[in-house]
Amino acid sequence: MTKADRWLLPEGVEELLPPQAARLEYLRREILDLYQAWGYEFVITPLVEYLDALLVGSSHDLDLHTFKLTDQLTGRMMGLRADITPQVARVDARNLHREGPVRLCYADSVVHTRPRGLLTSRVPIKLGAELFGYAGIACDAEVISLMAETLRVAQIESVHIVLGHVDIFRSLVAAAGLDADAENELFDAMQRKVYDEIDTWLDQRVENINLARMLKSLARLSGDAAVLAEAEQVLAHAPPQTRQALAELQQIAELLQRNLSDVTLGFDLSELRGYTYHTGIVFAAYTPGYGRAVAKGGRYDDIGKAFGRARPASGFDVDLKILARLSKSLPPHRKVVLAPNSDDAMLVALIGSLRSSGSVVIRHLDDSEASRDLLAELKCTHQIVEKMPGDWQVVELNTTTD
Amino acid sequence: MTKADRWLLPEGVEELLPPQAARLEYLRREILDLYQAWGYEFVITPLVEYLDALLVGSSHDLDLHTFKLTDQLTGRMMGLRADITPQVARVDARNLHREGPVRLCYADSVVHTRPRGLLTSRVPIKLGAELFGYAGIACDAEVISLMAETLRVAQIESVHIVLGHVDIFRSLVAAAGLDADAENELFDAMQRKVYDEIDTWLDQRVENINLARMLKSLARLSGDAAVLAEAEQVLAHAPPQTRQALAELQQIAELLQRNLSDVTLGFDLSELRGYTYHTGIVFAAYTPGYGRAVAKGGRYDDIGKAFGRARPASGFDVDLKILARLSKSLPPHRKVVLAPNSDDAMLVALIGSLRSSGSVVIRHLDDSEASRDLLAELKCTHQIVEKMPGDWQVVELNTTTD
Repeated sequence: MTKADRWLLPEGVEELLPPQAARLEYLRREILDLYQAWGYEFVITPLVEYLDALLVGSSHDLDLHTFKLTDQLTGRMMGLRADITPQVARVDARNLHREGPVRLCYADSVVHTRPRGLLTSRVPIKLGAELFGYAGIACDAEVISLMAETLRVAQIESVHIVLGHVDIFRSLVAAAGLDADAENELFDAMQRKVYDEIDTWLDQRVENINLARMLKSLARLSGDAAVLAEAEQVLAHAPPQTRQALAELQQIAELLQRNLSDVTLGFDLSELRGYTYHTGIVFAAYTPGYGRAVAKGGRYDDIGKAFGRARPASGFDVDLKILARLSKSLPPHRKVVLAPNSDDAMLVALIGSLRSSGSVVIRHLDDSEASRDLLAELKCTHQIVEKMPGDWQVVELNTTTD
Repeated sequence: MTKADRWLLPEGVEELLPPQAARLEYLRREILDLYQAWGYEFVITPLVEYLDALLVGSSHDLDLHTFKLTDQLTGRMMGLRADITPQVARVDARNLHREGPVRLCYADSVVHTRPRGLLTSRVPIKLGAELFGYAGIACDAEVISLMAETLRVAQIESVHIVLGHVDIFRSLVAAAGLDADAENELFDAMQRKVYDEIDTWLDQRVENINLARMLKSLARLSGDAAVLAEAEQVLAHAPPQTRQALAELQQIAELLQRNLSDVTLGFDLSELRGYTYHTGIVFAAYTPGYGRAVAKGGRYDDIGKAFGRARPASGFDVDLKILARLSKSLPPHRKVVLAPNSDDAMLVALIGSLRSSGSVVIRHLDDSEASRDLLAELKCTHQIVEKMPGDWQVVELNTTTD
């Protein structure tokens, strides 16, 4: 490697310079303030921990995206976290010792061995909220409403939320008596939405014609609220667990349609993202101009089991870097004032009061021309000048003073 | 490993639960707001990058504390950063393309392979500020003042700042003609302050009696401002570079004594922390009750050279986790209100207005006894009740309403 590419960052690893970093920080605060106002308590979980704790309740895919490290103190394998949800579930299960609903939120970096999609960062900043300990539909409704509110605060426009329920697929597969391998094959075809392949596969592998028909329909049940009515027909004679899951989806849809006025709702009955750990309603939010979900989540009731305490759980997360890129939200404008590099007490007092009242005051160390260019870049609009000895005043920059 | 210890965190790896995490977040914002008010622009550098870029200008010690990772996309070696300063120097040298002074700040996690000291975290949160592009003493003065201000904002009490200058030792060693191995031996003994060993070593290895005498004194020149007067005597006939370094130290001491009224200053002429990369004045802040420095920094003018652009540089950092532990600063108190789980429009409007005006409003999903305990834990003081149909009011919790 030559010196020339020493400073190139790895693919999918980016940094945020001014003013983008300040915009992200502003958005981070706005969203965390929102979570606090809703009663979600902030936690900070560690970047590295033992691998078996880190991968609890997660998918094989997450394992492959997790960097492995050897703990030099014990020789045990640690992981550099690729997701924060399992950590927060551990906090609820093991560290807080609380009964009843627990609301937690977080905002921190994760690292992926490989980008999870085209043009996706390997160092996203995950911001999320999780609600533990309540099994009812009101929990899912609150979490989805908070996700919608997150996007409203970030001024993301034309938000479309797609809802699904993994138990619809799961219960039909169970009723059809498919084994794990067969389930994976069908799941994979469903994800790729290859209808012909799905149909042929179901005709060959599922003897019960009714179940095969329902699973075929499932792959195609995607769209607006009409999908729910259609599903009601198609799944009229489905097994009780399937009916139950569909009823839950209908209830949540009704609740959200009443309460979320500024988003459109969609439904996708073969939406199975996170199928290996999700256990109920799943959801994802989209906005025009970004091809992937800007926010996503769902129910994952069993995650605490590995920590010895299974609790109902639902939550979502966003990548703050993506949100900041799409967001129209801007930090409030601040006056930027240039101050002479003198330690006259009156000047020091003036600078202190300007800074406390929200202005940026930059000490002018260097009077060179280069420095002047820099001041333009920093958007200095004012400067402090000494009108009379000890009489310091803020004047507009580049105006003549006498 | 049994299930029972699956959730134990590795040694030196900790997490912050409520309310500690919220206190840290509050402090983080207070300090970043301070840096913004002083004109320091926020940057976010990546957690991982190619190792050769990450270790630029740093010590062998930092290398040993950096976890190594293989980039699966290229096969090149990456590092999980153990320090942020080299990254910020790269941003100044390569990414910003600005002449004149550049002020940058950051707040982010780093990871160390092993704790750097007893009871030290392996996952500190580093918060720091760096000033590039100005070689004068005013740069060091600004950076040290901002460090003192950081500790004032964090309400750290009885702050003591110790100043040193690595060029005093470095120039005497150069004048004595010591090679790198000899320099390391002497440096090591100086750090351990083993006076007898230092004296014997110098008698044997340094022919010039005057230089040996000066180096012996250096090891003992540590204390209050009287140290500077003593150094003036001891180093009266030292080489010009040594005299120059001492003069710089005297100048900065004078400036700081005038401007930092609420900290005490100390001097340590054999303070050589970060000797391999520091190039001028170095400083560290202490507070009673914590055995290590709570903040530290110094000049490191040459770090940008490896990126093709050497620029004067000075800066400092703190571990936010330690600062939050020592800090007396607390987030403002918020009213916590319990709300019924109804979607009545009047109630929704009331909840919205309470949340926007700074209250925490928690939806009461679960009416069980366990949930009541939780409400006590969450410090709910008020609840919303429906006095008349559609007439929702905030009342104190546990008061009888009729």
